Amino acid sequence: MSDRNSTAARASDRAFLGTALHAPAPGRLEVLRDVIVLVGPDGAIDAIHPGASGDGMAAAARHRTAGTLRTLEPDQYLLPGMVDLHVHAPQWPQLGLALDEPLEVWLQKYTFPLEARYADLDFATAVYESLVDGLLANGTTTVMYYASIHLPATRALADICLRRSQRALIGRVSMDDPAQCPPYYRDASAASAEADTRAFIAYVQSLPGNRGLISPVITPRFIPSCTDGLLQRLGSLAQESGCHVQTHCSESDWQHRYVLERCGISDAAALESFGLLGRRTILAHGNFVGDDDVTRLVGAGAGIAHCPLSNVYFSDAVLPLRRLLDRGVHVGLGTDIAGGASPSILDNARQAVIASRLLESGVDAALERGQRRREASRIDALTAFWLATTSGGIALDLPIGLFRVGYQFDAMVVGNAAGGNLRLEAGDSPQQVLQKIVYNAGRSNISDVWVAGRRV
Amino acid sequence: MSDRNSTAARASDRAFLGTALHAPAPGRLEVLRDVIVLVGPDGAIDAIHPGASGDGMAAAARHRTAGTLRTLEPDQYLLPGMVDLHVHAPQWPQLGLALDEPLEVWLQKYTFPLEARYADLDFATAVYESLVDGLLANGTTTVMYYASIHLPATRALADICLRRSQRALIGRVSMDDPAQCPPYYRDASAASAEADTRAFIAYVQSLPGNRGLISPVITPRFIPSCTDGLLQRLGSLAQESGCHVQTHCSESDWQHRYVLERCGISDAAALESFGLLGRRTILAHGNFVGDDDVTRLVGAGAGIAHCPLSNVYFSDAVLPLRRLLDRGVHVGLGTDIAGGASPSILDNARQAVIASRLLESGVDAALERGQRRREASRIDALTAFWLATTSGGIALDLPIGLFRVGYQFDAMVVGNAAGGNLRLEAGDSPQQVLQKIVYNAGRSNISDVWVAGRRV
Repeated sequence: MSDRNSTAARASDRAFLGTALHAPAPGRLEVLRDVIVLVGPDGAIDAIHPGASGDGMAAAARHRTAGTLRTLEPDQYLLPGMVDLHVHAPQWPQLGLALDEPLEVWLQKYTFPLEARYADLDFATAVYESLVDGLLANGTTTVMYYASIHLPATRALADICLRRSQRALIGRVSMDDPAQCPPYYRDASAASAEADTRAFIAYVQSLPGNRGLISPVITPRFIPSCTDGLLQRLGSLAQESGCHVQTHCSESDWQHRYVLERCGISDAAALESFGLLGRRTILAHGNFVGDDDVTRLVGAGAGIAHCPLSNVYFSDAVLPLRRLLDRGVHVGLGTDIAGGASPSILDNARQAVIASRLLESGVDAALERGQRRREASRIDALTAFWLATTSGGIALDLPIGLFRVGYQFDAMVVGNAAGGNLRLEAGDSPQQVLQKIVYNAGRSNISDVWVAGRRV
Repeated sequence: MSDRNSTAARASDRAFLGTALHAPAPGRLEVLRDVIVLVGPDGAIDAIHPGASGDGMAAAARHRTAGTLRTLEPDQYLLPGMVDLHVHAPQWPQLGLALDEPLEVWLQKYTFPLEARYADLDFATAVYESLVDGLLANGTTTVMYYASIHLPATRALADICLRRSQRALIGRVSMDDPAQCPPYYRDASAASAEADTRAFIAYVQSLPGNRGLISPVITPRFIPSCTDGLLQRLGSLAQESGCHVQTHCSESDWQHRYVLERCGISDAAALESFGLLGRRTILAHGNFVGDDDVTRLVGAGAGIAHCPLSNVYFSDAVLPLRRLLDRGVHVGLGTDIAGGASPSILDNARQAVIASRLLESGVDAALERGQRRREASRIDALTAFWLATTSGGIALDLPIGLFRVGYQFDAMVVGNAAGGNLRLEAGDSPQQVLQKIVYNAGRSNISDVWVAGRRV
């Protein structure tokens, strides 16, 4: 059963024997050395025993006999699956392209024309299947998706995630303001946008076989795309339904100023006034949130999707991540496909370290050291890994990202691989293993991925 | 012959049929569509013909019959091999570790103790074989290496590069200053350091079968590690021998200030005064070079090894790359293993774009836009690729990095692969292909690598 190529047997694995690593708190690594993790039929972790204990050996024997035991190789590690808090599903074909334009030009010239094509359900289905497969292969077990304004294509994305077993939070995008949305790609009215959002929520809630894997998300694109009327309707719907909410907040100089000018208050304050800021709200970016906004986010329990690769191209500054974490804001990571060029949360984890270091050191060598630095801004590799897993789960208010009884078994196996640059060695400490994974693991180092206990 | 698994046949390929991409100038992509590239026994390109021309078809037929034709698949591209201008070979075991310390601590606490272990030739041989294989697998066909102070281990590195067919410029490291070098890891005297450097030069120049693949490099570690006496000796040796020179220059606040205080002049000016600044000098980093230094570098024709990943951890600021390029400084890319955590020049190419964008936008959102930005600092993906190939060749004064008659055939094949995130599509323009490669290709997308026409 330890043969890593034995796919058929593994689809029904229920017990996992090996060393697991996870990060219960920022900067804190917990090593579950040689344990057996037992997973129930609902995909949740039933028990974790030392492999050499009586309970552990009994469970291993039972599952070995049943053919439901997976034993990791000595150079493999079991890690929590990663959480991507920000993906624009329809932008998948644009990955790595046209990153030289500012946000407002990028949207009008490339992104809106591409997203409009998802009126074509066949096109949407082909792209979304490729996307979901690509993210799973990168170890991303939970994704918060923006789809497009099209209800049929958004339903198709939910169907695909369910079929492929990817935990997904999906929103039909709402955008109705003729001043900012092109005529070929916008909701006909605030009323129709609300109706389509309600229809998608109902669809997901009655999806056969769903059992909590797929959740609907109320998704005003961002304030510049939406009329006040639509934002009010969606805020009320959020209060009424308890659904997750996602939108963009204070991403760039342009967006930040646009909202200040139109609403007279900051982006976060405006979202709060519309009833869109709650415990299950995820705000993409937030690079320009002020101190009052931070108080608002903490009060609401809302989270930020930090997208450090995308920020390089579209955000005009680095997120003051450490300041937010120190004040208690929930933060997870996002790829922001296709504002970010990589589909890998690991790539974004290492970029989160890099961004935090460059904010701390400053970038302009022509300035004096004292003028250039922003002290106490850095995070380390382990905190980046915590952001990619545990903290993403906290932000979403879901029991994921840790190996803990009652948590969902969303996991991946990471180890050396011919096509990758990861070089784990026998004498590495767990801390060294984790650093090497954050700095050098890639898709080819992720050999197996499970969501809710099901191998994908 | 187009079977990509037909390894045996390909070792002797002399003709390559397919589409090649290269960058003759910053930001300029040249597409050699459906050409045949013919390579002579010396590894240099003899001719490039359109595949459909009379000459092209005749050559293809001739090499097909001889079994020396390699035909690329339609979704594969032939690219120049990449040039890494800055690798510390003995630091390979430390890749991705201990990146939270400042440079001067990192050296004393981790790096010098590790480098001292290369007195053990068996240890050195095992590490260097792994390193050279790892870099070749990442498409790096030319590397400028720092070895350690140990002559036998440095000779072993030369032997390994020759045997593996990696183009390599290798330096035995010189460091004799008791004030900065620990007693367990330093040259006994300036005279012995010079003697060992001369011995290594002689060894490489008489290496059987070398024929220009391996070159010796005069390598004072950096001014803080060397006495003035040693720097003078090595400067004279550089003038006398015409060998390449490598050292570090103005890498961090600490190094920059150290040299100013000790020498009373800038790092680049001091190196010039010792006779160490010439057409074949490569200075690692240079983040803090001033305007006068730039004039000096341009006058000497010296180059800079830009190591954007390493800079994040050890340099306190971003290299003002665009300013240097606009003034005509030669710049190539370096991984700075293990200051940088990745062995991939592609990773550094995308990080060069990122660093340049963050310098342009600024990083601290608490500053006003006008205060934060450094206009006209960005480079694009194509310029990053030019840095990784053509410009690295120019900096080294070697005929590499381009598909041009007389240039060495150092090349790689890039295409989609199961283990990678690159997603080339049939309708992509060459510009899009290049952008996707720079942003998303990795080791698993590089299926074949040749150096001097020999498959490695």
